[in-house]
Amino acid sequence: MNIKVVAFDADDTLWVNEPYFRQSEERFCALLGEYASLHELERELLKIEIDNLALYGYGIKGFMLSMIETAMKVSGNTVSTEVIGQIIDLGKQMLNQPIELLEGVEHVLEQLKGKYRLVVATKGDLLDQERKLRKSGLIHHFHHIEVMSEKDDANYLKLIKHLDIKPDELLMIGNSLKSDVLPVLNIGGYAVHVPYHITWAHEQIEDKIDNERFKSAESITEVLELL
Amino acid sequence: MNIKVVAFDADDTLWVNEPYFRQSEERFCALLGEYASLHELERELLKIEIDNLALYGYGIKGFMLSMIETAMKVSGNTVSTEVIGQIIDLGKQMLNQPIELLEGVEHVLEQLKGKYRLVVATKGDLLDQERKLRKSGLIHHFHHIEVMSEKDDANYLKLIKHLDIKPDELLMIGNSLKSDVLPVLNIGGYAVHVPYHITWAHEQIEDKIDNERFKSAESITEVLELL
Repeated sequence: MNIKVVAFDADDTLWVNEPYFRQSEERFCALLGEYASLHELERELLKIEIDNLALYGYGIKGFMLSMIETAMKVSGNTVSTEVIGQIIDLGKQMLNQPIELLEGVEHVLEQLKGKYRLVVATKGDLLDQERKLRKSGLIHHFHHIEVMSEKDDANYLKLIKHLDIKPDELLMIGNSLKSDVLPVLNIGGYAVHVPYHITWAHEQIEDKIDNERFKSAESITEVLELL
Repeated sequence: MNIKVVAFDADDTLWVNEPYFRQSEERFCALLGEYASLHELERELLKIEIDNLALYGYGIKGFMLSMIETAMKVSGNTVSTEVIGQIIDLGKQMLNQPIELLEGVEHVLEQLKGKYRLVVATKGDLLDQERKLRKSGLIHHFHHIEVMSEKDDANYLKLIKHLDIKPDELLMIGNSLKSDVLPVLNIGGYAVHVPYHITWAHEQIEDKIDNERFKSAESITEVLELL
């Protein structure tokens, strides 16, 4: 291993993210409890989110619009504008949420700094990711921030070209096998999976990964032993 | 002048954009005509858009959410969900709009290619800008695409650092004095203003620009004579 760049996913790798989506989803379901069961509401929302993904991309604004669309659909267009207003408030609260760093993150960044170029590779909304990074207090650790519309092979190739490194000089650390691990292995990089206790249904994959450039870690601190 | 990189703004410089926002705004006002005058509706929408800008950033999804919020506000929360649904449809139509290139753009790119590194520097929604660029058929002309959350001095400095050039090796071409010209002049680059016949109120500035690194052109084709 001759790693030059260590790249970190952001949401649910550096800081808490998915729990806030779940919390908003719960509040959303409570607002619409008179129209459908919890299970139906969750299923319909996920379906509409995935249908809108190609158009809206990842992030909170698309989630807000999908919640509004779901509310109209499950209520047969009878939902009150008060509820629509509450959905918008839910989204604005998410955008204003303080950043809660995950355990060990600062220690790991301190330890790796100077030895490797550290990078953030995240997907979603550009402004929102920049804002979270600023609020996190971590920004000074990083050489480069890459926000991608989708974490696929092509965008990781663009990243290594930009960083002027070979694929096997990249180590990516993240909680999503689909977004942080598989495409990085595909292009010839190293990847460490640090699972988070909740993963969005759309990020879950069934595959078993068998690759010598892949490691699974129980916590981000374990990455220090692997390097 | 020793220009190495020619950077182009995208919306209303390479292709039509603002007229689609105006068209949607008109349709939005028609939907809400019973609640307020055209003038009041436009003023309220602009106010809500600007209030939300720090939170949502630029782009269509934020515009959709601001239209929904405006509809609720001007109707005193009595707007029908049917209208909310029509607003969402308006936004989705905008996201699916075909790309209409502005006159002369392809010719200019053909002429400059090989002589300069060509770059797109745009702000707004990452996914939407990438999609438009793909649909435009222009992507093969460009060495690099930079989507910024805000076109300010700091982000232009990051761009020239990334391109590994000095400020006075950059020439930026765009329709917005506020976003494409002033910050580029501030950091020591060259800028050409190619006005478009409509500009969003929030992009308009009053200042007269007097700077030897600044030129105004009547059309993008004129840029060929300036270089």
